[in-house]
Amino acid sequence: MTKPMKGKEFADSIRQDVLTQVEAWKAQGREPRMATILIEGDPASLYYAEAKGRAADKLGIDYELHKFPGNVTEEFLLNVLDKLNRDPDVHGIMLELPLPKHLTKERIISAIDPRKDVDGLTASNLLATINGTTGLYPATPLACLGLLKHHGYSVFAKHVVLIGIGETVGKPLLHLLLREKATVTVCNSKTPDLALHLKRADYAFVATGRKNLVTAEMVHENLVIVDAGINETEDGSIVGDVAPDVLNHVAAMTPTPGGVGTVTTAQLFANLMLAMKLQLNGQEECS
Amino acid sequence: MTKPMKGKEFADSIRQDVLTQVEAWKAQGREPRMATILIEGDPASLYYAEAKGRAADKLGIDYELHKFPGNVTEEFLLNVLDKLNRDPDVHGIMLELPLPKHLTKERIISAIDPRKDVDGLTASNLLATINGTTGLYPATPLACLGLLKHHGYSVFAKHVVLIGIGETVGKPLLHLLLREKATVTVCNSKTPDLALHLKRADYAFVATGRKNLVTAEMVHENLVIVDAGINETEDGSIVGDVAPDVLNHVAAMTPTPGGVGTVTTAQLFANLMLAMKLQLNGQEECS
Repeated sequence: MTKPMKGKEFADSIRQDVLTQVEAWKAQGREPRMATILIEGDPASLYYAEAKGRAADKLGIDYELHKFPGNVTEEFLLNVLDKLNRDPDVHGIMLELPLPKHLTKERIISAIDPRKDVDGLTASNLLATINGTTGLYPATPLACLGLLKHHGYSVFAKHVVLIGIGETVGKPLLHLLLREKATVTVCNSKTPDLALHLKRADYAFVATGRKNLVTAEMVHENLVIVDAGINETEDGSIVGDVAPDVLNHVAAMTPTPGGVGTVTTAQLFANLMLAMKLQLNGQEECS
Repeated sequence: MTKPMKGKEFADSIRQDVLTQVEAWKAQGREPRMATILIEGDPASLYYAEAKGRAADKLGIDYELHKFPGNVTEEFLLNVLDKLNRDPDVHGIMLELPLPKHLTKERIISAIDPRKDVDGLTASNLLATINGTTGLYPATPLACLGLLKHHGYSVFAKHVVLIGIGETVGKPLLHLLLREKATVTVCNSKTPDLALHLKRADYAFVATGRKNLVTAEMVHENLVIVDAGINETEDGSIVGDVAPDVLNHVAAMTPTPGGVGTVTTAQLFANLMLAMKLQLNGQEECS
């Protein structure tokens, strides 16, 4: 009865909804436009930035890729962000992470207009995610929970184990889960025995960036796993944080690739649509 | 071997530290001053506001109690806050909660200068608490964790059950615990079986405002409990969220009264000392 919880069908439904909204904006004379800032030097970032460009193209969304050399200064980047913030034709701004070490991540992120911050990186959007108020929530946590729900599972009053409490996935996901009234056990790298917690969980969300962290002997046959990890193996293939053969020992699990990541890219453009509403429909700021 | 983890000794040590700092500020010609805003109508709030006044007096801290009638307008209160924010002789502002229903809590809280927000109510101080950056953290969560540490316990790599995820105690406490590398299980009113989680925890923090929520049959003899609940019984006495006889079935537990609440009041004045540093020592703002 094991099943892989693939992301494509849910991602398709998100994209269909985005397409409808893109058409509606265009009918109003607005061309949805996303700008991505990429500092050269990280091959994975370049790959993602270009993949998002192809996805935007299919949705009829304009996409600007701003590439800068690895030694770009903080002041130059802040100036670029200021221009993008003020450009009424740019509706979403993505900053590819990680940044080179000479750049102050917090300072650059805080320069992004929260209403254009489709990655949900800014402080005011983190607060919105935590408090459940209007704002742009990070795409990966939304994709994790949305994919689970799409496959018919609810975390309400269930016991969820969350492994990993990073800024971009674990921490915001924790608050999404708490607002759904899940009982959540947050594990981290110092948790002595992950299996102890996984053995009695209904659901597990894993977002640590460590491949094969969860193995078959840690799980049970009624567990449902959402794996947000994206790790490159030595042979260049992509694997999650959960060993692939765990699928045979649980009730359901997202595959990697083809699971959370597939939904995340679609969710980014759903965020762009919300960003346009926040900017253009006279709604309140999300701060 | 059961022991009540009383708050007095730790509160005394905090007060001693505050006294030393108060003297140092006075030697520089600065008179530490706290202002409390109280909307009349809630007897408990009046009791707490006056008790804090007596505590301030013993520490040589000036204390202004601003009382307003129950029908005070939002605009009037915002005007009062604006004056207190701009008054360089006022270093801490406390707003007694709950507010009457005709007032918008979020709007009034957001009008408090974060550097004077000794209760840690504002968004920027919540963010600081979550991210571990400089700011004024809410006093009760600090008191909970500090009292446990004072009695020789560390949550590092331990399993902690947190019952209650409210804005002022549970939510900020959760992030303090996660930063100490605890594995944390967050329970709420929909958790089907609290005992299931408590039975295998090393520590429990309880902050729900429901008396007798935790009972003797839910716990085990090695458990250490911090009870942040303050509830009034029908006969007017004060009890926590944990039934008092639980003390006989665990390794250690904070008493109520005389536990967390005792420390919280002292911690508020420690926050006032930090607030003065943030305002007067040219440190960065905590936003």
